[in-house]
Amino acid sequence: MSSKLHFFLILSVTCALLQISTAGDPDILTDFIPPPAFLGPPGGNYFTFTGMRSLVGGPFPATFRVLKATMMEFPALNGQSVSYAVLQFPNGTVNPPHTHPRASELLFVLMGSLQVGFVDTTNKLFTQTLQEGDIFVFPKGLVHFQFNGDATNPALALSAFGSASPGTVKVPSAVFNTTIDDQVLALSFKTDVATIQKLKSGLSG
Amino acid sequence: MSSKLHFFLILSVTCALLQISTAGDPDILTDFIPPPAFLGPPGGNYFTFTGMRSLVGGPFPATFRVLKATMMEFPALNGQSVSYAVLQFPNGTVNPPHTHPRASELLFVLMGSLQVGFVDTTNKLFTQTLQEGDIFVFPKGLVHFQFNGDATNPALALSAFGSASPGTVKVPSAVFNTTIDDQVLALSFKTDVATIQKLKSGLSG
Amino acid sequence: MSSKLHFFLILSVTCALLQISTAGDPDILTDFIPPPAFLGPPGGNYFTFTGMRSLVGGPFPATFRVLKATMMEFPALNGQSVSYAVLQFPNGTVNPPHTHPRASELLFVLMGSLQVGFVDTTNKLFTQTLQEGDIFVFPKGLVHFQFNGDATNPALALSAFGSASPGTVKVPSAVFNTTIDDQVLALSFKTDVATIQKLKSGLSG
Amino acid sequence: MSSKLHFFLILSVTCALLQISTAGDPDILTDFIPPPAFLGPPGGNYFTFTGMRSLVGGPFPATFRVLKATMMEFPALNGQSVSYAVLQFPNGTVNPPHTHPRASELLFVLMGSLQVGFVDTTNKLFTQTLQEGDIFVFPKGLVHFQFNGDATNPALALSAFGSASPGTVKVPSAVFNTTIDDQVLALSFKTDVATIQKLKSGLSG
Amino acid sequence: MSSKLHFFLILSVTCALLQISTAGDPDILTDFIPPPAFLGPPGGNYFTFTGMRSLVGGPFPATFRVLKATMMEFPALNGQSVSYAVLQFPNGTVNPPHTHPRASELLFVLMGSLQVGFVDTTNKLFTQTLQEGDIFVFPKGLVHFQFNGDATNPALALSAFGSASPGTVKVPSAVFNTTIDDQVLALSFKTDVATIQKLKSGLSG
Amino acid sequence: MSSKLHFFLILSVTCALLQISTAGDPDILTDFIPPPAFLGPPGGNYFTFTGMRSLVGGPFPATFRVLKATMMEFPALNGQSVSYAVLQFPNGTVNPPHTHPRASELLFVLMGSLQVGFVDTTNKLFTQTLQEGDIFVFPKGLVHFQFNGDATNPALALSAFGSASPGTVKVPSAVFNTTIDDQVLALSFKTDVATIQKLKSGLSG
Repeated sequence: MSSKLHFFLILSVTCALLQISTAGDPDILTDFIPPPAFLGPPGGNYFTFTGMRSLVGGPFPATFRVLKATMMEFPALNGQSVSYAVLQFPNGTVNPPHTHPRASELLFVLMGSLQVGFVDTTNKLFTQTLQEGDIFVFPKGLVHFQFNGDATNPALALSAFGSASPGTVKVPSAVFNTTIDDQVLALSFKTDVATIQKLKSGLSG
Repeated sequence: MSSKLHFFLILSVTCALLQISTAGDPDILTDFIPPPAFLGPPGGNYFTFTGMRSLVGGPFPATFRVLKATMMEFPALNGQSVSYAVLQFPNGTVNPPHTHPRASELLFVLMGSLQVGFVDTTNKLFTQTLQEGDIFVFPKGLVHFQFNGDATNPALALSAFGSASPGTVKVPSAVFNTTIDDQVLALSFKTDVATIQKLKSGLSG
Repeated sequence: MSSKLHFFLILSVTCALLQISTAGDPDILTDFIPPPAFLGPPGGNYFTFTGMRSLVGGPFPATFRVLKATMMEFPALNGQSVSYAVLQFPNGTVNPPHTHPRASELLFVLMGSLQVGFVDTTNKLFTQTLQEGDIFVFPKGLVHFQFNGDATNPALALSAFGSASPGTVKVPSAVFNTTIDDQVLALSFKTDVATIQKLKSGLSG
Repeated sequence: MSSKLHFFLILSVTCALLQISTAGDPDILTDFIPPPAFLGPPGGNYFTFTGMRSLVGGPFPATFRVLKATMMEFPALNGQSVSYAVLQFPNGTVNPPHTHPRASELLFVLMGSLQVGFVDTTNKLFTQTLQEGDIFVFPKGLVHFQFNGDATNPALALSAFGSASPGTVKVPSAVFNTTIDDQVLALSFKTDVATIQKLKSGLSG
Repeated sequence: MSSKLHFFLILSVTCALLQISTAGDPDILTDFIPPPAFLGPPGGNYFTFTGMRSLVGGPFPATFRVLKATMMEFPALNGQSVSYAVLQFPNGTVNPPHTHPRASELLFVLMGSLQVGFVDTTNKLFTQTLQEGDIFVFPKGLVHFQFNGDATNPALALSAFGSASPGTVKVPSAVFNTTIDDQVLALSFKTDVATIQKLKSGLSG
Repeated sequence: MSSKLHFFLILSVTCALLQISTAGDPDILTDFIPPPAFLGPPGGNYFTFTGMRSLVGGPFPATFRVLKATMMEFPALNGQSVSYAVLQFPNGTVNPPHTHPRASELLFVLMGSLQVGFVDTTNKLFTQTLQEGDIFVFPKGLVHFQFNGDATNPALALSAFGSASPGTVKVPSAVFNTTIDDQVLALSFKTDVATIQKLKSGLSG
């Protein structure tokens, strides 16, 4: 291999290694993080996300659905500490207990009503029934859920997050749809292995 | 009331007031900042903001209007780094150039269409025409505006901010509706004092 | 006592209480946060925590036990962004799935061995069997657990946290030992209400 | 193209993409950010900025002038959260209304006198006349200006910023020397299009 | 005064004092931290520091002297993350090795010349000889010093800090002018107790 | 050189340059920072550090020794804001005065006893004698030391840090084992050059 190539290799790998120490939601040192240089300079469309247009006039889904506009779907959000998700609840559906490790959630009910709740670190449950126009804040990192208990009407909500990359830990999946040992789970939930296996099989389906 | 008591009262209230100012947007050391102890422990309603309910089915305003749900209106947001504003644009109205010193803004068009833009620190203008369902990000601290250029239809948008207290600097008011010296402004805007005075009188009306 | 005095007292104490909540984990503007002035100036003992002495030569507990040295137990940690917990695992015991909303955890095995694991936000499980002297990092905000699977020997671990107040969300309790509606949980865990009630009764015991 | 070259290309582009998520004024994990490796290890001169030497004994400019020592001109400032600017005001000149989106400014009057002011987010104007030796703080993100109203004497000031990259939004340019639509500006400043066009032509000259 | 009143007074003042300690250097949620309410609303003079006026035309001191404008001397700096110090070096004087635990220092030589240096965490010394107009950055938390080696001329420098409260640890005083045990110091500095005592007596004079 | 190669070179160097603006202890936007892609996806062992296993049953060293588990030795700590060090003190040995520029230290005495102390920025010394099971906090950036004064027994401590990369400034080395000018040091420590040279020769041995 030529020495020049060798130099590239070392430089590139160094790049990759140093890169490890990147990324942070806090203040950036520029107005925004531009797209990679080979894509050319950004224009107004770089700062625009059109992925939610399909919702307008589109059919309501049959099951609970989340559409996200975070840094992953909308790269211009990098460094801006904010993101969105649209939540669609057909009647009788739930957004199961989950946490967002990197952000609080501010939910705005656009249509219908929702029963919501979160549990704080002293294990106290806070619940509320929200109507159209109501806003509810789920503090950062706490277990929370939303439920559309209405027998016939759907509900629609928009959630804002105080991070460009809030992340989601879905409790049922994280606990019962990974391969955590049955015995560990039975001990943890103070139940028998059969119940654990029943929960696992329901969630893995 | 004795002067000593009076002193206590002032000191204590000052305490309470300053406290609000000292809590920072970064991570807090508790799940949330509770209401003052004399109001009793918080329940689900402490985390709920109902001030936007009036929008549902209410009349559309005749002029551009902003309704906010920031820490000021919704104290539970303290320490959660996120807030909302609802923007209502009758046809042909504008949200004049302004900045938010403490947050980026993520605007979601719920109804109608908007022409939006911001100017970066190299003085480059980025503009876009948004339709219903579109999302646009205005980076932190930059001058930006929104305009409903439609001749007949109103526009409605929801904006999320990556701070519980984004703050707003309205450029026309800050520059021409305070008592900054006419000569300073004339020099700054490379114009004559008469033009400055005309702008001032229009904006102070 | 007059009602006005009473009001002062409540207001002042509220002040003192809130103060604790407002100091953030990020950089402080002083070397340390001193004790309240009426306790006098701090000495070396203010920076010392002796609550773990009882562990030395003490009996090993019969069930899994956590002893903490966080800002709550050790106020000098306020503003210093670090804290400790000692974890004692009799043979066959588990530290059930949980998250720390405000910190990563760095676990050091001092005695025995442990099976540990965490689940990331893509629902991938990472597990490891640790022996004496091993260190394992549980990233911030993710669901994790530890298990002493040894049939006869206890295990002892020390965990450091990158916050003075990491907080703990115990998944079994937060989900099944609060009053979250049975129907919401049944839908969330894709099971029947009877199974939910069985889990709830086991955990509330 | 050879597979090795292909590998380089992918690796390099990956580099460029990942890099996107970089940069922040907050604490770094090293003493300083060194120059790129191919420039060799840093010496004392890497931490020295000599770009202001020309000011010593040099002629005073005929118009208001700013000389900066920020991360752009002085790369060693990266990660150190501080920077400088030297401001030179011939008699009767102004530093027009502007904001710094990423830092407060601490202005030290080294020679002459200055009239200064800023407008807070409640639209309140704070002004002061400063003499030699005075220091004034312009809070982060707010509109501010400085004016040397003296008929004959120049003024010289040094400004420190609490960021290595404070950024500057010049209000007259950002509003009237970009291509923001005349109608939008006329509506925003409650004036006619002719006045807007007059301002634009004065500032674009 | 009754003991209860006394208790209130202490508690309230403690509140006020602690408050100062709790506000962090990171982003605040207001434009600025106002003075306590009983002092009335702030005006332009609240944002002005006149404590350096005495330097103008004043005599040069006979020994090295530092004048500070940090949060302690200038309360409006609270939350603004920036501060100043003026350093006056008569010929042949030194600012002994020290660190600033909470900020980098950006030194601007206004008059004369200085020999400066800092030591990084790998124990590498970086030095430079600065002339009038030069700027040098001392990275956060590292040991550094400045020396005016000129036989006849004084030197004057202005230092900016990226914190409103940088703090100073003077190495000679911290090590040899406190009551750290002589034996501990002799072992630490690999010398005899007599040398330690000699150093101590020189510095305590 | 071919144009493709040229492209690589430019891209790679761009990489290296952009990299400059990296690294921060604050919140990351991902669960963890993975290893470089060419090493494959991480498994449980990526989150495990086994470098302390050698301590178990190993001989006690003859001189004071520190073993670290920071980001340097354990890359998975990047972005997690926490790290460890094991401190081994044979009888009569000292960990000389030093500072950690980027973290507080929380020391846990696992065996033996230690005399510890730190000096705050007002030059006040805080000392304590710790026994097995005691925890002591050394605030961020302050000079501190530990001493095992026991005539016969060794001491063992574990220290946690609130940063993945705390850094260490060893005072004796930084001051007397670099090439800081003898005259500067003599003036700083108010002693003669002979004493400085004696200290230097003892520490460079």
